[in-house]
Amino acid sequence: MAVKKIGSQTVKLLNPPSIIATASLVGPKEGQGPLGNYFDKVLEDDLFGEDSWEKAESKMLREAVSTVISRADLKNVDIDYLFGGDLLNQLMSTSFAARDLQIPLFGLYGACSTMSEALGLSAMVIDGGFADLCIATTASHFSTAERQFRYPLELGNQRPLTSQWTVTGAGAALLGKHKEGPYITHCTTGKVIDYGIVDANNMGAAMAPAAADTIGRHFDDTNTLPEEYDLIITGDLGRYGRDIASDLLKTKGYQVIKNFTDCGIEIFDPKKQDTHAGGSGCGCSAVVFSGYLFKLLKEKSLNKILLVSTGALFSPTSAQQGESIPCIAHAVTIESKKMN
Amino acid sequence: MAVKKIGSQTVKLLNPPSIIATASLVGPKEGQGPLGNYFDKVLEDDLFGEDSWEKAESKMLREAVSTVISRADLKNVDIDYLFGGDLLNQLMSTSFAARDLQIPLFGLYGACSTMSEALGLSAMVIDGGFADLCIATTASHFSTAERQFRYPLELGNQRPLTSQWTVTGAGAALLGKHKEGPYITHCTTGKVIDYGIVDANNMGAAMAPAAADTIGRHFDDTNTLPEEYDLIITGDLGRYGRDIASDLLKTKGYQVIKNFTDCGIEIFDPKKQDTHAGGSGCGCSAVVFSGYLFKLLKEKSLNKILLVSTGALFSPTSAQQGESIPCIAHAVTIESKKMN
Repeated sequence: MAVKKIGSQTVKLLNPPSIIATASLVGPKEGQGPLGNYFDKVLEDDLFGEDSWEKAESKMLREAVSTVISRADLKNVDIDYLFGGDLLNQLMSTSFAARDLQIPLFGLYGACSTMSEALGLSAMVIDGGFADLCIATTASHFSTAERQFRYPLELGNQRPLTSQWTVTGAGAALLGKHKEGPYITHCTTGKVIDYGIVDANNMGAAMAPAAADTIGRHFDDTNTLPEEYDLIITGDLGRYGRDIASDLLKTKGYQVIKNFTDCGIEIFDPKKQDTHAGGSGCGCSAVVFSGYLFKLLKEKSLNKILLVSTGALFSPTSAQQGESIPCIAHAVTIESKKMN
Repeated sequence: MAVKKIGSQTVKLLNPPSIIATASLVGPKEGQGPLGNYFDKVLEDDLFGEDSWEKAESKMLREAVSTVISRADLKNVDIDYLFGGDLLNQLMSTSFAARDLQIPLFGLYGACSTMSEALGLSAMVIDGGFADLCIATTASHFSTAERQFRYPLELGNQRPLTSQWTVTGAGAALLGKHKEGPYITHCTTGKVIDYGIVDANNMGAAMAPAAADTIGRHFDDTNTLPEEYDLIITGDLGRYGRDIASDLLKTKGYQVIKNFTDCGIEIFDPKKQDTHAGGSGCGCSAVVFSGYLFKLLKEKSLNKILLVSTGALFSPTSAQQGESIPCIAHAVTIESKKMN
């Protein structure tokens, strides 16, 4: 068998699965941001016709999956597996969406790293010959995340400048054996890294070491350099986290400056939108990839990117018990052409 | 490429990965149950030297993984991936254990179905050539689950007879390309099924339809009959759930009576241990498999089993919002010999 595992944490896909189509839905605030025109649907109201934000989040995920299926002229029964997750306890959004979708589900939890975790596993399962078509999907919602992880919104707490704004949005990507790109060519799976950050309003600083670890490992394993990528884009480190990750990568011998950004930085305009350090939430990298990056790869404005969704495995319970925030980042290389 | 996907929800592993070794730790109550002698370690105190039950649960998971690694004369760096999860919000046990273990992590949430989800994904990733060695692991703890999903233990609430007792325990299975069995030969991935049960103290009834759906699908897909299995064992339906699943399977044309049991039924003695309908929790099928079934497969007292971990994707938030309990079940066929 040809070598698929390269280095310590990376696999190379020998017949790289294609990303056939994507879909994205976002809330009103995300629709007003710099990428607003790229998303398939901008909700007028973040309740999306439901009677709770949690149900709205679940409906967004379901709609993202349904949209990507119909866009590819397929039916739900054609999809082998759904790889998905969200930030809510017990994956409430994904579980309820999957109940309606009736597609076999692998439930994932990687906090905001879930999109690249789902893309990586989908790609491996297809390349391994176990599935023809998989969907990777995640969602998040500002109002559900705030009340689950921080404070009731009704309190109107002031937000420090290091805080990030959880993206209201859902993205879905359909993967399969397909002639046209873009293709997932490599996956680097992260370890849990924890530098001792305890501030739930500074997730960027908490996640930056995990991002730097996975990105550095990816370059080591694939024997590539940052300049070989048109874009290296983390999930949601925000401004401060991006700078810390950049500094940490420098200590590993990698200069990532010009082509290194973050989905959380791209999605909002911090001056006009009062979003402080940037966007976050597992919907953030999901919609920035599904809505924006996929289109640039499709039209070949981008030819090779490293998408690195980053997750703070933050638990209110562990925080109350005095623990710091363990973090993880998973990376996938996405290329517009197959390079074998 | 040979056909790996058979039927609608099942894959056949062409070079079935072997389960090289397992490890199991349980709490004092589980140690006093009918399977007590099979487990590697019985804790004297369910705090396991920690200052919270959550930290104890995480330590159990970490110890299960470390034990299985040393049992196979390996080191942490030899393991390609950890596929794991638990019941705690944000996978607190798994996340913190993985921080110490420093093995690349795919975090999974499938509630009590997580063990077979992890076994199935590990098997596919190995058979697909992406990894040499993976560990599937889960843990649960009575005291963490009760206070997260139901009531504070201090209230001393009375438990209805349909309620189940969350197993305090952690199990880990090391999978790889190995000469000796047992082997994982098939995986059937479940859909989310919800028949409208709303009672958080009757998880067996909620999960039974999902179990019956996956088991029936497995027989359909593999063209096998129940009598071809030495044992068909669900994760934690308990007594009532097992009977409901058995009835539902009858309506699908499958008679599963003699060789159909449940990990939750096997682990406790309901008369002596006051555990009502049986055990539950994602540690339940993990320790019953890792501690007990694995040994019977190894010594060939069992030659072919269908392990069907069952998960109630129950969320306190969704319950408060008037929703019923969506459930899922994943099945893996484990055989002592390769049958190709």
